[in-house]
Amino acid sequence: LKIGILIFDQVTQLDATGPFEALARIPGAQMFLVAARRVPVTAEFGLKIVPDVDYRTCPKLDLLLVPGGIGVNALLLDRATLAFIRLKAAQAKYVTSVCTGSLLLGAAGLLEGKRAACHWLSLPLLKAFGARPSKRRIERDGRIWTAGGITAGIDFGLWVAGQIAGPRVAKEIQLVLQYDPQPPFRAGSPKGAGRAITESVTAARFAMQAQRALLVEEAARRLK
Amino acid sequence: LKIGILIFDQVTQLDATGPFEALARIPGAQMFLVAARRVPVTAEFGLKIVPDVDYRTCPKLDLLLVPGGIGVNALLLDRATLAFIRLKAAQAKYVTSVCTGSLLLGAAGLLEGKRAACHWLSLPLLKAFGARPSKRRIERDGRIWTAGGITAGIDFGLWVAGQIAGPRVAKEIQLVLQYDPQPPFRAGSPKGAGRAITESVTAARFAMQAQRALLVEEAARRLK
Repeated sequence: LKIGILIFDQVTQLDATGPFEALARIPGAQMFLVAARRVPVTAEFGLKIVPDVDYRTCPKLDLLLVPGGIGVNALLLDRATLAFIRLKAAQAKYVTSVCTGSLLLGAAGLLEGKRAACHWLSLPLLKAFGARPSKRRIERDGRIWTAGGITAGIDFGLWVAGQIAGPRVAKEIQLVLQYDPQPPFRAGSPKGAGRAITESVTAARFAMQAQRALLVEEAARRLK
Repeated sequence: LKIGILIFDQVTQLDATGPFEALARIPGAQMFLVAARRVPVTAEFGLKIVPDVDYRTCPKLDLLLVPGGIGVNALLLDRATLAFIRLKAAQAKYVTSVCTGSLLLGAAGLLEGKRAACHWLSLPLLKAFGARPSKRRIERDGRIWTAGGITAGIDFGLWVAGQIAGPRVAKEIQLVLQYDPQPPFRAGSPKGAGRAITESVTAARFAMQAQRALLVEEAARRLK
């Protein structure tokens, strides 16, 4: 079971490391962190991860996982990355994403007519790729499996483990991860957080989101 | 606000990367991943993280976080690591751990008489260090703040953000992380998972836990 997780500069590292922790524990799983080049990738906030393989040396994958983050913007029009995603997706049994990684699946032309999840802040952008935005934390449309924002990747990793290896294995992994969440606040969704906090978070990301919207538009145009 | 997270070979990477994602978003936070030497650390299941500083070049920290994992065993009797933890703990405002990282706080002599959390499987071992094992997901005893197993580090990171920067900031971080968990099963605690799954997980780790118990005993002896 070859599982490849794409990493890139300015990735949200928890989009990748959260599901990694669950998926790596599936019996028989072989994990590959893949980057454009085999040099350390610097995630948002500076955490550096060393890729195992690059786009050329990455083996054929059973499962591709594309995480999100600010770095998605730089990749929306990156031909090498989109070609890599398209190639691995064509060969894989499961094509998956966490957070705004679904925008890259969209830019690679993989979401036309498909239901897909995304980080709440970028969810509406999926429409440009012909996708049907889903507010669910875990969304499944055929072999396209997508998760919501950042920490949804942990729920997702356990769910994927259940799909691939059965609920017994997934429950064992959940127990090892002691995943019995007790969030200190109820602010994990716009509804739970309330209007003031949601507006504040949205305003702080206005410029980044405006740039993202333009890039998504251009990426969608290139698909036509 | 200087935050240092210890990393080492065979660390459970999510013990470190989970809280990292929350803590790094506290306004003014400067993150330092610290290892014995400035070469990439290989976590359990092969994920490689590049440390920012080593024990000698790590600055004085406001918050020290010690994660856990199989690699804890090799460090329980490691004088350089225990001396590093002791030094940084003496200077820090907050001394914290996730998962079996609390065993290293214990081996460094920091838990005598203190309530402390740990991964459920290793929780009883804390007694050897004079600590009072706590089943809570987040435990606070003075400036010693400890979390339960692996994913407890995410609850913990948000809680710490609230303690340091106030609930408003912590809620904004929780919304960005979209931390509205929906575990696919209810197997995140021994009680929830039930006896069969708990016994299976425990049996698979018997040798590792037996070795750990011996090392903890010797580490505790050295403190006397």
